[in-house]
Amino acid sequence: MTALSMPTTPIPVPRLFSFIAGNTGPWRMESSTAIAGQPIAAAPCIDVVAGAGTIPVGASWLLRGITSNERYVERAEKTTLVSKQEGLGRAQATCAALIPIRKTAAWWALTQDERRQIFEAQSQHTQIGLKYLPAVARRLHHCRDLGPDEPFDFLTWFEFAPADEAAFEDLLHALRASPEWNYIDREVDIRLRLAAD
Amino acid sequence: MTALSMPTTPIPVPRLFSFIAGNTGPWRMESSTAIAGQPIAAAPCIDVVAGAGTIPVGASWLLRGITSNERYVERAEKTTLVSKQEGLGRAQATCAALIPIRKTAAWWALTQDERRQIFEAQSQHTQIGLKYLPAVARRLHHCRDLGPDEPFDFLTWFEFAPADEAAFEDLLHALRASPEWNYIDREVDIRLRLAAD
Repeated sequence: MTALSMPTTPIPVPRLFSFIAGNTGPWRMESSTAIAGQPIAAAPCIDVVAGAGTIPVGASWLLRGITSNERYVERAEKTTLVSKQEGLGRAQATCAALIPIRKTAAWWALTQDERRQIFEAQSQHTQIGLKYLPAVARRLHHCRDLGPDEPFDFLTWFEFAPADEAAFEDLLHALRASPEWNYIDREVDIRLRLAAD
Repeated sequence: MTALSMPTTPIPVPRLFSFIAGNTGPWRMESSTAIAGQPIAAAPCIDVVAGAGTIPVGASWLLRGITSNERYVERAEKTTLVSKQEGLGRAQATCAALIPIRKTAAWWALTQDERRQIFEAQSQHTQIGLKYLPAVARRLHHCRDLGPDEPFDFLTWFEFAPADEAAFEDLLHALRASPEWNYIDREVDIRLRLAAD
């Protein structure tokens, strides 16, 4: 058996991520703004690590989320998204945002058809996001089913180039003006810049 | 201020549950049968406790799951379900089943419309369940987003009276014959009886 024909075990793609705010990490925190509900403390840096992590000595806070299956996107939308989107970690994408949100009990009491109606038919959530591809890359992390005591329901991590910062603001403005945002009772907008070292 | 007008804090409804197999607990295990994939060890008893729990000394295994929002049910279906279903803990419901299942990677790669199509249009999952209400009470627990290493995606707990055992078998038979079950690669069927003491 040659090396090339050796069976390989696929490397599992990490699903659980920890966002650790403190004095270390490649992302320098520029601001932490409460859009709705309680704020989150600012800190010098954020580190993003795969796994559950534990809060290091001297760190300020840790938030966890897990990537999961899509809850609303339909096949035609998915095909368009996949054809347009780019991944995290692009060299030019030196700006990032971490936006934790929590939805209301009223949202979670809705049925699937009602949530999809608000998410897409009324709010065009996917269609708005598509307009900013590939400039704005994102990864959505779910928190609500990690356990019963999570402070947020979702953590979204965005990456974009400095030249696309205005476009990113437009994206947030459009989403926050949509009917879906009536069901959000806590939102914090944390802006980051890749440390130049 | 009288006692009656004192403000009260609503008691949070538990969402996270632990199923602990060992030598204690009110549910006597009658069988543990692997329907697909790896089996789970039999044990004398199962205890169902709210919270994350820790595996007690001498216990055999512990499985955790969290109740969550519905992923497929639409409003008309929900209204019918709520009007017909009964809760857990009925005095006559001395039979129980714990059925952990795991769905395939192919299932989780489907979009919402594709999963709903298989779940209801092809498999009538909700309609089948409705036929056995109120005889069979159930609580669905999600595990997949508790963390990246859960052995199952769902734990369903069923309770019914001994006289409804044949109906419960019919329910399982109908679900297992449905197209949705082509996406299940691990399933264990654990039967329990309330200890008479």
